[in-house]
Amino acid sequence: MRVLGVDPGLTRCGLGVVDGGRGREVACVAVGVARTPPEDELSSRLLAVSEVVEQWLDAHRPEVVAIERVFSQHNVRTVMGTAQVSGVVALAAARRKLPVAFHTPSEVKAAVSGSGRADKRQVTMMITKILGLAEAPKPADAADALALAVCHIWRAPMAARLAEAEARAAELARNHRARLKAAAQATRRS
Amino acid sequence: MRVLGVDPGLTRCGLGVVDGGRGREVACVAVGVARTPPEDELSSRLLAVSEVVEQWLDAHRPEVVAIERVFSQHNVRTVMGTAQVSGVVALAAARRKLPVAFHTPSEVKAAVSGSGRADKRQVTMMITKILGLAEAPKPADAADALALAVCHIWRAPMAARLAEAEARAAELARNHRARLKAAAQATRRS
Repeated sequence: MRVLGVDPGLTRCGLGVVDGGRGREVACVAVGVARTPPEDELSSRLLAVSEVVEQWLDAHRPEVVAIERVFSQHNVRTVMGTAQVSGVVALAAARRKLPVAFHTPSEVKAAVSGSGRADKRQVTMMITKILGLAEAPKPADAADALALAVCHIWRAPMAARLAEAEARAAELARNHRARLKAAAQATRRS
Repeated sequence: MRVLGVDPGLTRCGLGVVDGGRGREVACVAVGVARTPPEDELSSRLLAVSEVVEQWLDAHRPEVVAIERVFSQHNVRTVMGTAQVSGVVALAAARRKLPVAFHTPSEVKAAVSGSGRADKRQVTMMITKILGLAEAPKPADAADALALAVCHIWRAPMAARLAEAEARAAELARNHRARLKAAAQATRRS
């Protein structure tokens, strides 16, 4: 499974492509960052990020796009720009009919470091080691994008099992309701 | 000047096209709402809204797109979706090289009702009257989109004058700094 991880941002948008193999095998395909000048108009900046993401989708053909889920506890202005970029990235994926998954920062940290409260430096260190890179990806946004992709690959089998279990539970509940209804009708008729 | 006003939202995205004439003359060209089902995937919903916005841009050929600026004081989940939609709408405009303007809810309310704290009912009532509509546009998101477009048309001359004044002030400041620097150099040489 090839995943494009995206750490959304207007000033720096981290991009990382990772291939998943057997078990926990992962390999870095590409890593980088899309930058837009803060003095540009917001809509031009969104267009610029969108164009870079489309280039990456064309060049690396991922099967899934994993995006960091944005929270609004931080700086309001920054968060709005970040959310807008995440929308534009999800749109680019949807246009190519690619599935999009959102992971929270703590899910990503837990996946690569074992702790949901690891700091940026620890995440960079772990992802460098996990992917066997010669040097640490820079800036931190690029390392985060790779961590997102790895998080998605490692969580995917569990997510699939969970979805299957939920679908099975929903079907059992439907069958149960149908049996109750049939029993009630049989009682009324008798 | 023809403006497409957009009240961004995932469940309901208000759209309103207004033509501005002489002075405060305004005329409604089209009004509506793009809806997406809450049970759909986020990325499919963003794609659906984006496609409707592109249809409106093609059909009505506005010169400007005015979008409601999103604030994060409300429900976090809703705000993120709203910000993502606003990003997708701004992107559609940027792709067509159309300028995008953001107006806050209080700017819109003040423009159409004279008060930044008018409620939804008052905004709907005022916009119905301003545009001389036979009946009030429904839902409120559609009325808000028209109000945004009218707000942009009425604020545009003032915004242009303000931008001109700011550019002039920046140039005066640059000239002043250059004169100070030249004077300091002349003093050092003497």
